[in-house]
Amino acid sequence: MPSNRAVSYQGPGRVEVQEIGYPGFELKDGPGVNPANVGRKVPHGAIVKTVATNICGSDQHMVRGRTTAPTGLVLGHEITGEVVELGPDVEFVKVGDLVSVPFNIACGRCRNCKEGKTGVCENVNPDRPGSAYGYVDMGGWVGGQAQYVLVPYADWNLLTFPDRDQAMEKILDLAMLTDIFPTGFHGCVTAGVRPGSTVYIAGAGPVGLAAGVSAFLLGAAVVIVGDLNKERLEQARSFGCETVDVSRGEPKDQIEQILGEPEVDCGVDAVGFEAHGHGIDSGEERPATVLNSLMEITRAGGALGIPGLYVTGDPGARDEAAKQGSLSIRLGLGWAKSLSFGTGQCPVMRYNRYLMQAILHDRVRIAKAVNAVPIPLDRAPQGYEEFDQGAASKFVLDPNGVLGTSG
Amino acid sequence: MPSNRAVSYQGPGRVEVQEIGYPGFELKDGPGVNPANVGRKVPHGAIVKTVATNICGSDQHMVRGRTTAPTGLVLGHEITGEVVELGPDVEFVKVGDLVSVPFNIACGRCRNCKEGKTGVCENVNPDRPGSAYGYVDMGGWVGGQAQYVLVPYADWNLLTFPDRDQAMEKILDLAMLTDIFPTGFHGCVTAGVRPGSTVYIAGAGPVGLAAGVSAFLLGAAVVIVGDLNKERLEQARSFGCETVDVSRGEPKDQIEQILGEPEVDCGVDAVGFEAHGHGIDSGEERPATVLNSLMEITRAGGALGIPGLYVTGDPGARDEAAKQGSLSIRLGLGWAKSLSFGTGQCPVMRYNRYLMQAILHDRVRIAKAVNAVPIPLDRAPQGYEEFDQGAASKFVLDPNGVLGTSG
Amino acid sequence: MPSNRAVSYQGPGRVEVQEIGYPGFELKDGPGVNPANVGRKVPHGAIVKTVATNICGSDQHMVRGRTTAPTGLVLGHEITGEVVELGPDVEFVKVGDLVSVPFNIACGRCRNCKEGKTGVCENVNPDRPGSAYGYVDMGGWVGGQAQYVLVPYADWNLLTFPDRDQAMEKILDLAMLTDIFPTGFHGCVTAGVRPGSTVYIAGAGPVGLAAGVSAFLLGAAVVIVGDLNKERLEQARSFGCETVDVSRGEPKDQIEQILGEPEVDCGVDAVGFEAHGHGIDSGEERPATVLNSLMEITRAGGALGIPGLYVTGDPGARDEAAKQGSLSIRLGLGWAKSLSFGTGQCPVMRYNRYLMQAILHDRVRIAKAVNAVPIPLDRAPQGYEEFDQGAASKFVLDPNGVLGTSG
Amino acid sequence: MPSNRAVSYQGPGRVEVQEIGYPGFELKDGPGVNPANVGRKVPHGAIVKTVATNICGSDQHMVRGRTTAPTGLVLGHEITGEVVELGPDVEFVKVGDLVSVPFNIACGRCRNCKEGKTGVCENVNPDRPGSAYGYVDMGGWVGGQAQYVLVPYADWNLLTFPDRDQAMEKILDLAMLTDIFPTGFHGCVTAGVRPGSTVYIAGAGPVGLAAGVSAFLLGAAVVIVGDLNKERLEQARSFGCETVDVSRGEPKDQIEQILGEPEVDCGVDAVGFEAHGHGIDSGEERPATVLNSLMEITRAGGALGIPGLYVTGDPGARDEAAKQGSLSIRLGLGWAKSLSFGTGQCPVMRYNRYLMQAILHDRVRIAKAVNAVPIPLDRAPQGYEEFDQGAASKFVLDPNGVLGTSG
Repeated sequence: MPSNRAVSYQGPGRVEVQEIGYPGFELKDGPGVNPANVGRKVPHGAIVKTVATNICGSDQHMVRGRTTAPTGLVLGHEITGEVVELGPDVEFVKVGDLVSVPFNIACGRCRNCKEGKTGVCENVNPDRPGSAYGYVDMGGWVGGQAQYVLVPYADWNLLTFPDRDQAMEKILDLAMLTDIFPTGFHGCVTAGVRPGSTVYIAGAGPVGLAAGVSAFLLGAAVVIVGDLNKERLEQARSFGCETVDVSRGEPKDQIEQILGEPEVDCGVDAVGFEAHGHGIDSGEERPATVLNSLMEITRAGGALGIPGLYVTGDPGARDEAAKQGSLSIRLGLGWAKSLSFGTGQCPVMRYNRYLMQAILHDRVRIAKAVNAVPIPLDRAPQGYEEFDQGAASKFVLDPNGVLGTSG
Repeated sequence: MPSNRAVSYQGPGRVEVQEIGYPGFELKDGPGVNPANVGRKVPHGAIVKTVATNICGSDQHMVRGRTTAPTGLVLGHEITGEVVELGPDVEFVKVGDLVSVPFNIACGRCRNCKEGKTGVCENVNPDRPGSAYGYVDMGGWVGGQAQYVLVPYADWNLLTFPDRDQAMEKILDLAMLTDIFPTGFHGCVTAGVRPGSTVYIAGAGPVGLAAGVSAFLLGAAVVIVGDLNKERLEQARSFGCETVDVSRGEPKDQIEQILGEPEVDCGVDAVGFEAHGHGIDSGEERPATVLNSLMEITRAGGALGIPGLYVTGDPGARDEAAKQGSLSIRLGLGWAKSLSFGTGQCPVMRYNRYLMQAILHDRVRIAKAVNAVPIPLDRAPQGYEEFDQGAASKFVLDPNGVLGTSG
Repeated sequence: MPSNRAVSYQGPGRVEVQEIGYPGFELKDGPGVNPANVGRKVPHGAIVKTVATNICGSDQHMVRGRTTAPTGLVLGHEITGEVVELGPDVEFVKVGDLVSVPFNIACGRCRNCKEGKTGVCENVNPDRPGSAYGYVDMGGWVGGQAQYVLVPYADWNLLTFPDRDQAMEKILDLAMLTDIFPTGFHGCVTAGVRPGSTVYIAGAGPVGLAAGVSAFLLGAAVVIVGDLNKERLEQARSFGCETVDVSRGEPKDQIEQILGEPEVDCGVDAVGFEAHGHGIDSGEERPATVLNSLMEITRAGGALGIPGLYVTGDPGARDEAAKQGSLSIRLGLGWAKSLSFGTGQCPVMRYNRYLMQAILHDRVRIAKAVNAVPIPLDRAPQGYEEFDQGAASKFVLDPNGVLGTSG
Repeated sequence: MPSNRAVSYQGPGRVEVQEIGYPGFELKDGPGVNPANVGRKVPHGAIVKTVATNICGSDQHMVRGRTTAPTGLVLGHEITGEVVELGPDVEFVKVGDLVSVPFNIACGRCRNCKEGKTGVCENVNPDRPGSAYGYVDMGGWVGGQAQYVLVPYADWNLLTFPDRDQAMEKILDLAMLTDIFPTGFHGCVTAGVRPGSTVYIAGAGPVGLAAGVSAFLLGAAVVIVGDLNKERLEQARSFGCETVDVSRGEPKDQIEQILGEPEVDCGVDAVGFEAHGHGIDSGEERPATVLNSLMEITRAGGALGIPGLYVTGDPGARDEAAKQGSLSIRLGLGWAKSLSFGTGQCPVMRYNRYLMQAILHDRVRIAKAVNAVPIPLDRAPQGYEEFDQGAASKFVLDPNGVLGTSG
């Protein structure tokens, strides 16, 4: 049986690569595994040998110690790879298929899955609807920043690339289909982006940049990205976005300079609960800053897409309300402008096949836009650290050396 | 020229009936009139002789002194009546038409109107999108709790009843088309109510009851209404709703008793910013209680419709945040459940013709459901007071004695 | 192993009840079974002991000899029953569950299923997307007018009733969830029916009546049903529909008498390709009559829902074009009115859970509306004959004597 | 009063430039003017001095003598220009505004306009819903291939370009906003084009090419255009479309060569009723060819957008059915594939502001894609003739010499 080296959380600020054992078709106990899932049979599963597995901003929340993630939790939910073994119930996926794994685990058999709401599947997380690989409080499915990972309900969850060779040529682009590309796209869709829209995206991290690419793919006329990080803003400009430096204050005035009016049609929050203030407050965490600012700059009758993560509990927050996941929101302003708000995990399956087509037919260059950088598995700790320090890169781990990094 | 007696605000807790002068086709200065609207020509307007003009819960916010409404403001935005005079630009509405006036004033010529977003028309309120008759900070259009009122952009705004006699037979039902019926309906639509849905409506005031009627019209399987007021809950039960008494605590448990599960498909907030707490907190104002509670009881993947009014500023609020219209919202919970939120004034025109048809063809009995009670204009002060004290009634003023009240 | 008696097609005008053998978890050859499906393993299947299994108008097309159905084909696609055996891959459905089986067979794993288009599943019919039990050219899945039937992909396809006793009390209503209730509902949805709509439904057979019930559930203000058959029109009137007798001519004038105008908002075709002419042509088959008539009476900007079956080949048609499934359609008229047209099998799963809720909570009485009449399995031949002669009844077979018919 | 020279129809194959008199704010009798519109007051109108006014494929139907257009009918419904005079009721449009005029005339006051269905306005054409400038049976509004034209309901109908100088730089692109760009876009929207779609567009005339540009703007992965005309196919390839030469036979095989499968997600009919056959039938008119072919190549569950014009009567058709606007359509095939069909005039107002933004911000180069060629007004006859002969050009008339053609 092959070895299976993986990235695990080892306490605030620390991740480590360790051997975790080759996956089987039954869930075993381990750090973060929900007790009710221990012993669960997975005859519908596939074992995927990873080709690319990305570090995500939402992993950082755990690694920064902002969650209750236990030591030893195996990280990773952005998985692309090759099917190497199948459970007896799998009918359509084949060994050898090169596949994209949606980060949200879904059963394909519950009411929510049948309605296309795979981000809130009822059958995979014993605690509540919604699950993901390698994530705290998400059911305890073992993470995929590893050489091998078990994917349950493989016929339902996996997206097979139609041609293996063609896919390998664009593998860094296709690796973004597991999470950030659909997530940014979903943010734009829930914000109502359509051909001709003006769009403001808060946050120039990978999800924000993916939202920028998505906005263009949806036909947006102007895409404006705001951040505090100058390097990330530069990255946004590299593919045609306008930018706003929120360290200089509220985005309203800069938007007016760009558009001739201080409002946009659509607002996207690609920051989430670890938001910092704007202007002189930019050194401070201000979890409601982004949402309140988006309500100000989104035109009456518009919509806000909120792919940025907000949590039910944030033990590391400064004030009591934020610890409970409560934010002081200017809802009255949003109400007066008849805004609508879309939240939650992106249901990746709703979009990934279509976005794959856009990649394969050269309509988007998502890997370049987010500056995807492949690194060996063993450099995962450095990847986490650099990303945490604001590198304008999306790190793609290469656990099996397929991407040509020298591990 | 006929007299024109009207209800005006005279300071916290006080309204008065006074002569205000017959309207003309040009806006004049007066209490609450936006200076930029003074002198505005209204050749597209119609003068409507009121047949029915209702007291609304949102009027109460002003009368309770919770807004910056000036003394002398003429109240009233729920207007039904007969067209008695037309400006020269009106082409399709005729003198003698019996009409329903949507409470939101709209120009029918701006981008938002063209997109059907008449609740945020850009051309009628000089300060910001969105307007209404007789309402503070809404542009200063004179209110319609009066014998006569000017309706601008009459061809666009007015809905003519197809048959006058047939309409007079159902006039109390049709009088609900100006605001609360579409508003409750919009709340249900934005909450995603469809045939077979389970729905929880917070608030059994007239909008909540109208939302209940609307939910049934949309085919809901179960409609549950929650309130502190036992008389209003009784009213909700009168047309088939299940009820939850929130003075007994959070609605979750009572919902479970009704449905066998603690969650509903769709949540509607028909309370707004003057919400009280639940259970032992029910004596206190807790502006975020309703929203936080709806996030708890609405199932993952569901939606919240928020027709209840939230304001940009609430000078009478107890804490500083609420004074700015900020509420402490458990957004993390909503995000984890992938909820969506729809806010704002109902764009009445999107629904009123269809709801009129439902009334005229006996599909709904909205007046009975909300317990519409016609009273003479001179009894408006008592109507305001009784409504403020929680009467399970919707008071309909009869300024011209057409409804047969003895004024 | 129990016996398994079933209804089979024995040539034009003839059906017979015969023993067909108890189903297993592998497809066997037989009349109408697609060769490519022979030997197919069905570990994801459930064996359902039927409680109710209805005769459908679309069965009549076969029995009348209007298709290429082979002798011996086991009929029946409207199946409700109890799960008595499960394949090894079934995870959530349990033995003893009382279930509704959508007539369209779907894998829950292909692109179309993931998009909710279960009526055109790509994996169950080797010839083309879309399948059904007991139907010619639909893949050869054995029909369910039998004591036992195999349901593949049981976790995906089956809808379990939440409470067995409660369900048995409304079993005739719930038996309509497999096909005609969702089918009629889908027709209304694609026709754009919403609260307040006026609706014309062509055809007062079971699907037309179910469309009528659906239109009311969707809030329609006026529902008009047209047919040549006076008994069926009487049935439509029994639950509040207006009716049009098309033997008296085109429906336009009668609609005008009802509504005061000759057009409706929404048109539903619940007749399909075996349509007869109107007025003096009502003795003749005129396959395009219904569609052309609906284009005339549906208002500009409206929509037509077409649940009535149109076939790709009709060997029994009178003219060559109709034999190829071609109809002479006044598309120019539809285009001038900007109409849209929705066709195809209803994707039952999109609606059945919600419609079940509407039944269980007493919002609709579908069995009464369509005049559901349970009969013993052995009386199936008579049921087919009476239905073919225009009985205003929906015959529900009772193969296991659970409905209390004396078999 | 300035002269007003215009293009008029002078019998089959003949158009002429003639003086027609300067427009006023009241409709006068003339060739093709609906008697019920004579004398109609237009105080809400604007007089527009044309800057660009295009020859449209739908004009060709008239000029070829395929309609009942009377001699002397002033042509032209694709109008862009400057407002030079305003009726007294116009409030927001200003003299000097550079504007785009949607080809469909709409009142902005009827039910259909309020629902955004401006292509079937009820108040401008006395005969039936829907109207256009300079078109037979459309109410008789004088055409705009002229120096000056009256636009009624100017506040509602006109789209003002935000900056005059910026607009003049892209005037040939902006000139496509009156009709073909929104029309092609609407075809794609009703066909369900979304990011990642594969699209087949029948017809490489200006509307087909505009549909191609629109499909890309909507994010399509692959856009395939089919035609008989090699020059037009070359034009389609110039901006990234794949092409199919239907003179070589049914498009299915060529599509399979391009995509690896014989079907696309979305089908657009940009040909209409004057369609020719495919392959060996390409010399013959076959009005149903395009629709039947689209049903074959559009995947199950997909949709057809039909911007191509189908008429209620075609006196020049070869067979009786086509003369009545009836076509022999393989509806059975469409039904088996659960296709939906969207027809009718594009409601330009739904899209033009957004598409304007896409032009102004350099997201599309529509003029180049359709090969817009400005010509002097006096060369209109040659323009009509060349276009009729299949020139791969979109001719833009320059009645006032603003586009720099030497008239």
